[in-house]
Amino acid sequence: MGGPPAALASVRSAVRRALTQPPVVRAGALVLVACSGGPDSLALAGATAFVAPRLGLRAGGVTVDHALQEGSDRQAAQTAATLRALGLEPVETVAVRVTAGGGPEGAARKARYAALERVAAQHGAAAVLLGHTLDDQAETVLLRLARGSGARSLAGMAPRSGHYLRPLLGLDRSTVHAAAAAMELQPWHDPHNTDPVYARSRVRDEALPTLECTLGPGIAAALARTARLLHDDADALDAWADRAEQEAAVSGGLSTAVLAELPRAVRTRVLRRAALGAGCPAGALRASHVDELERLVTAWRGQTHVDLPGGLRGRRSGELITFSV
Amino acid sequence: MGGPPAALASVRSAVRRALTQPPVVRAGALVLVACSGGPDSLALAGATAFVAPRLGLRAGGVTVDHALQEGSDRQAAQTAATLRALGLEPVETVAVRVTAGGGPEGAARKARYAALERVAAQHGAAAVLLGHTLDDQAETVLLRLARGSGARSLAGMAPRSGHYLRPLLGLDRSTVHAAAAAMELQPWHDPHNTDPVYARSRVRDEALPTLECTLGPGIAAALARTARLLHDDADALDAWADRAEQEAAVSGGLSTAVLAELPRAVRTRVLRRAALGAGCPAGALRASHVDELERLVTAWRGQTHVDLPGGLRGRRSGELITFSV
Repeated sequence: MGGPPAALASVRSAVRRALTQPPVVRAGALVLVACSGGPDSLALAGATAFVAPRLGLRAGGVTVDHALQEGSDRQAAQTAATLRALGLEPVETVAVRVTAGGGPEGAARKARYAALERVAAQHGAAAVLLGHTLDDQAETVLLRLARGSGARSLAGMAPRSGHYLRPLLGLDRSTVHAAAAAMELQPWHDPHNTDPVYARSRVRDEALPTLECTLGPGIAAALARTARLLHDDADALDAWADRAEQEAAVSGGLSTAVLAELPRAVRTRVLRRAALGAGCPAGALRASHVDELERLVTAWRGQTHVDLPGGLRGRRSGELITFSV
Repeated sequence: MGGPPAALASVRSAVRRALTQPPVVRAGALVLVACSGGPDSLALAGATAFVAPRLGLRAGGVTVDHALQEGSDRQAAQTAATLRALGLEPVETVAVRVTAGGGPEGAARKARYAALERVAAQHGAAAVLLGHTLDDQAETVLLRLARGSGARSLAGMAPRSGHYLRPLLGLDRSTVHAAAAAMELQPWHDPHNTDPVYARSRVRDEALPTLECTLGPGIAAALARTARLLHDDADALDAWADRAEQEAAVSGGLSTAVLAELPRAVRTRVLRRAALGAGCPAGALRASHVDELERLVTAWRGQTHVDLPGGLRGRRSGELITFSV
C-alpha cells in the first residue's frame, strides 16, 4: 500500500489544519495560493490542489512578477503554467512595479501584498495561502531582534492574519522541499535568496548557521517557538491595553491616576497608541520617546511636555496627559 | 578644570542611580560589591568606593575563589587587596567548592550566589552589587533564545532582583573597561572567558560578532532593549496570571469555564503554574506539555488526561482541571 511520503503527508495535513480551523472557510469558497515558483510555495500549491477539493473548496493560484530581474515575465508565466498543471483554477499572473521606500525588500513586499489584495478581491477569495516556513519565521525573528523591539515585533509572522493563512509556519524548510520533490515539482531558485545584499539572505546563509554552531542545533525551531509564545503575549497585553485605554480616556486626555495604576508594559502601550493616534509617525516613535512620556506619569517633577517625532508634543497639565502640535 | 573622563563619570552615575532609586538603601547601610577581579566588576568596585560614602553608605567587597584554576587562591587574594586599596571595608574572600549539576557554568554560578548570600547575611548588607554590563545581558538573551522560551526567560537579568543590583546593565563593556583604565585598575582576565568550551564564550566571540556583521552594528544594545521590554511584559502577565489563578481556583481544581475566557498567554501561565505547584519538575515541563494541558480546556473531545514529567497527570473531569500522580 503505502501512502504519500512523510514530508508530503506533513505538508498536506498542515494545509488541511489551516483550512479547517475556526473561522472555517465556507464550503464552495475559493482559496488562493500565492506562489513565487520557489520550492516552498510550490509545495504549498501542490498540497492545496490536493486538499482543497476534498474539503469542498476551490483552489486557485496567483504569481506576482516583480519585474526586478531579466526574464521575470517568462519565469512568472512558467510558474502559472505549473499551477494550472496542478489543477489550480483560476490562476492569475500579476506584474507589479516596485517603487522605492522601505528598502528593496520592503518595497517588493508592499507591491506584492497590494497585488495579492487586488486579485483576492477580484475573485472574491475567502483566503490567501502563503508559503512561509519555520525557517522563514526564524529569519524574521532574528531580523527584528536587531531592531530591539518588543513582543509584537518578535512574534514574527502570524499563522493567520485577516484572510492570509500561513499553513507551513510550523514545518521546516527541508520538509517542505522534500514534499516539493515528492510531487516532482521543478522549483525556481530566486537568485535574490542567496544575494548577500539582502539582509534576509545574510541571516539565512551566515547568521543562522553561526548560531547553530555556537548555540547548538535547533535554533530555528527555538526562534519559531519563541515567536509563537510572544505572539500570545502581545495579544493578551494588547487586549489589556484596549481596556486600559478606555478607562484612562477622560475629557480629551489620559488620566495620570489611571495610568499610574497600570503595570509598565500596559501603561507604555497605552501611551504609545495615544501618541500614534495623535499623528506621531509609527516608524519614528522609539521606546525612548515612550519612556519620556511615561516619566510625565511616574516621575513627574514639573516637566510640562515631551517632544515627539512629527512635531508633536505630549503634555502633562494637571492630572491629564494630552497631545498637540 | 576637567572632571573625570566620560566613561568613569558614566559608571559612577550608573552606580549613583542604582543606589538612589526606590526602594532606597537606608543611610549608614553597607553595600557589597561582588568582584571577580575582572575589569567590569573592578570598575564597579572603584565607582562604588567613590559614590557610596557621598550617599552616606558604607561600601564593602567580596570576591569568590571558585578553586577551578591553578593559583585561583592567589588571584582572589590579589583582588581582595585591590578592593582594600580602593577603600572598601570590609572585604571578604570566600572559597567555594563547585559541584556538578547544571553544566560547568551553572554549577559555578550556583556556588557563587550561595557564597554571596552567606557573606551578605553575615555583614547585614543592604545590597549586593553585580558588575554585569549591557554586553553580558545581550549574551544572556542569545543563550536563552536558543532554548525557545518565553518572555520571562528572554527578559534576561533584572537590574534589581531582591537585594541584588546590577548598576552597569545599561552600559556597554567598552565604556566600563575604559572606566577601569581611567582608575588605573589592573584587571585580571579570566581565561575561562575566552575558552570556547563555554557557551557564553562562544556567544561573545563568535555569535555576537557574526550578528553584528550580518544585521548591522548595535545588536548588543538591541538585545538589551528587547530584554527590558520583555521584562515589563512578563511582570504584567504574571500579575494577570496571579489574579486569574485565584479566580479559576475552585474545589480543588481549576475551573475550565474561567480558564476558557482568558487569553492564551494567561491561560497557559496559569496551567504551567498549576503543574509546577502539583510537583512537576520545572526543567522538564515544556511548552508542548502546557499546550496539551490547554487542549483539555480549549479543544476538549473527551480526552481524560495528559501525562506530564515527574509521573504527574493533568486531568479533566467535568468542568475541572486537576493534577494527580
